[in-house]
Amino acid sequence: MKMEELIRFGEKFFDELEIAIYKNRDASVNIELNEVSSSMLRERAVTVIRGVKGKKLGVSIIDTGDKEKIKEAIERAYKMAKLNKPDEKWTSLPEPGKYREPRKVDKELKEVSPDYFVDLAREGISLALEEQGIVVAGGTGGVEWGESLIMNSHGVNVSQEGGGAFFYLELVGMREGRVTPGIFDFDAKLSLNLNVEEVVRKALQKVKWAFNVKKSKTEEARVILEPWAISSLLSYALFPAFSGEKLVKGTTPLANKVNESISNELLTICDDPLHELSINPVIADDEGVPTRKNVLVEKGVFNGFIWDNYWAKLQGVESTGNAKRSLATGGISIGFHNVIIEKGKKSLEDLVGEIDHGYLVDGFQGAHSSNPDNGNFAVVANPAFLIKDGEVKGSTVFMMSGNIYELLPSLYEVSKEQRVLPFEGSMIVPAMAFENVRIAGK
Amino acid sequence: MKMEELIRFGEKFFDELEIAIYKNRDASVNIELNEVSSSMLRERAVTVIRGVKGKKLGVSIIDTGDKEKIKEAIERAYKMAKLNKPDEKWTSLPEPGKYREPRKVDKELKEVSPDYFVDLAREGISLALEEQGIVVAGGTGGVEWGESLIMNSHGVNVSQEGGGAFFYLELVGMREGRVTPGIFDFDAKLSLNLNVEEVVRKALQKVKWAFNVKKSKTEEARVILEPWAISSLLSYALFPAFSGEKLVKGTTPLANKVNESISNELLTICDDPLHELSINPVIADDEGVPTRKNVLVEKGVFNGFIWDNYWAKLQGVESTGNAKRSLATGGISIGFHNVIIEKGKKSLEDLVGEIDHGYLVDGFQGAHSSNPDNGNFAVVANPAFLIKDGEVKGSTVFMMSGNIYELLPSLYEVSKEQRVLPFEGSMIVPAMAFENVRIAGK
Repeated sequence: MKMEELIRFGEKFFDELEIAIYKNRDASVNIELNEVSSSMLRERAVTVIRGVKGKKLGVSIIDTGDKEKIKEAIERAYKMAKLNKPDEKWTSLPEPGKYREPRKVDKELKEVSPDYFVDLAREGISLALEEQGIVVAGGTGGVEWGESLIMNSHGVNVSQEGGGAFFYLELVGMREGRVTPGIFDFDAKLSLNLNVEEVVRKALQKVKWAFNVKKSKTEEARVILEPWAISSLLSYALFPAFSGEKLVKGTTPLANKVNESISNELLTICDDPLHELSINPVIADDEGVPTRKNVLVEKGVFNGFIWDNYWAKLQGVESTGNAKRSLATGGISIGFHNVIIEKGKKSLEDLVGEIDHGYLVDGFQGAHSSNPDNGNFAVVANPAFLIKDGEVKGSTVFMMSGNIYELLPSLYEVSKEQRVLPFEGSMIVPAMAFENVRIAGK
Repeated sequence: MKMEELIRFGEKFFDELEIAIYKNRDASVNIELNEVSSSMLRERAVTVIRGVKGKKLGVSIIDTGDKEKIKEAIERAYKMAKLNKPDEKWTSLPEPGKYREPRKVDKELKEVSPDYFVDLAREGISLALEEQGIVVAGGTGGVEWGESLIMNSHGVNVSQEGGGAFFYLELVGMREGRVTPGIFDFDAKLSLNLNVEEVVRKALQKVKWAFNVKKSKTEEARVILEPWAISSLLSYALFPAFSGEKLVKGTTPLANKVNESISNELLTICDDPLHELSINPVIADDEGVPTRKNVLVEKGVFNGFIWDNYWAKLQGVESTGNAKRSLATGGISIGFHNVIIEKGKKSLEDLVGEIDHGYLVDGFQGAHSSNPDNGNFAVVANPAFLIKDGEVKGSTVFMMSGNIYELLPSLYEVSKEQRVLPFEGSMIVPAMAFENVRIAGK
């Protein structure tokens, strides 16, 4: 029996239905206290059925790709739909669309043993321990391989496969009675070609800075936000405001800001899974709608919202191919595949070099408690570093609270280096420098 | 091939080894916005291998109970162990022990279809919507069935099975332009005999209170902490301090407090998975060590620490049967099976009735950021209710920050009703009333 026949089977019950099958294989290792603490080989399959009968929805999930069990799940989704009330706002599942050419995938990622990462992790640990007073507090390395098939009764039928490799390391410095905060760095790629040496080198540099603890003042200063820091802040305080669902519900502060500037011409943000640096190169979203390059902010000007099928049809616009499915609940929500923040012209080194007195922030704590409905945030910059006379002088900690729409216009430079982050699919992010940032020292 | 033969196979590589196999079946539904949004049937198996060769440890994990794949995982664990440094503190895996009589399990829980919970959820939704101005914001209902087998090369060989059912509901009240915070209630049992009506009744009562918003002052007052609130606060601020690992590492404030009072004679805390109300009746911990009743605090007096095999042997004491395994990393840590806080003599109604001016707290936000190494906490009481002249008058929100070791001695009464919470296994918790609690009003 072919997979398509499951759609035919489901049409006996439903007006329209969708079957999404996801298969994952993860091979990875954990690092704890200078040792490789465990190696893992995990494989799973999840099938999500979404069926509609008379605008009544039924969704069922099973942990298998087995056809007979999928049939049972279709019947369960139908029983459920019958008991629910109709969703009068429901229009229809997506129609087929034209996909872009998929990226070539590295099949090596599909077969690799966790043993490969045991060796890689040992190499990283050894390199880090060559330095005096270093503890490898934690880390992980591995590969995630995924295959998906999205079909619906309107003829959508798209399968994809691909994988990526990642390596994280968290170091703590201990010297002369001083203990640094945990400092981490990472690499993520679409091949096994991970640069462990570079990860260790960058983390060690930050540990060195962190040994030298400096006080921060309550003041207004120039602050450079490194990729991990700026991406966590934007992910919670800004990006959710781009969701079309929030436009329909009236909960985005961007509702009346289309074609208005929210920053300045240094800021350009797109979402495009097929960008050359993307580590999440999907040609279809989780409803089978073709992905595309969506420009969100162009030279500071807000360009418009992103949509999945449901909210787009409710608003009378087109899905932008931004449906993401939760495999825990089966629910579809609007999200990103690969956010790219355009790079600038200066190197991070030059940005630091130009600052007489300011700060470099590696990470934020508490970004998740930001409120995207108004842009308010209150975060702790840690690890953060003091810049004095164009050089990093030591580590510090401070609070930054404010509003993202007040922060963004004070952007004065973007670094030419971008980092690839494995956040929400993936993100390509430079360092971003802001002036007159109000900070509260500790 | 019998499972025991896998141990023999592993002994070709290791001095000693452990094989732990976990199989789970979850049937459940999600509730969103007055509808049953999805139904799930999830089944998974995870096997964790832990082997030791010359004090070198190797741990590997696979998502299957398949014997041939387990053999491969044993070989991977061995390759890993060879590359690691010896853990000079390692003594040995546990020896066999004597288990208590297991509780009879309800086999119905093993076979139940998610459809059962679609009906249950619909019943709960209908009951809640009979009330004016109520939205069923969310919820979940289902059953978790688990089977485990823990074997090691010293002869430990213990298998267990069992399951529990649960039902949560989150209601929001919307009336005359007022919107209450999300109010939730729940039931959890070792059978399908869930009391949906009671869950709805309790949640509706709290929504009624929540419509009437009252200011809270900054003051010292009597505060009754309901089971969900007190258990979240103790779980983060106090319970981790009972861990023997923290004693060895010198990070528990209880290190020199054995046989000293940390509260008063109203407070007695035990951990016992076979307590009559327990919904986690395990006879063995995750290393196969027999569980038992551990008295942690008796009439206010701290009685001693809990241990897993590794830290107990390092300290020269016996494991108390408190090893818990993470199925994400395979790692063992010290944890609880079923914490029981002894009940008192008065009803919650009487406790409220005796208060002229005070507060009743249903839940805390931010309890997870408590510091168990010193007992400090800073939480937001929400939902919380104002008590005036012995009656609940309306809902309020306030901050409570302090130290758990300063709060516990001000305990002046414990309710005679206990609730069963599905926290960390399970917990049996009464409401607890404290006097002279410093709160910061909003």
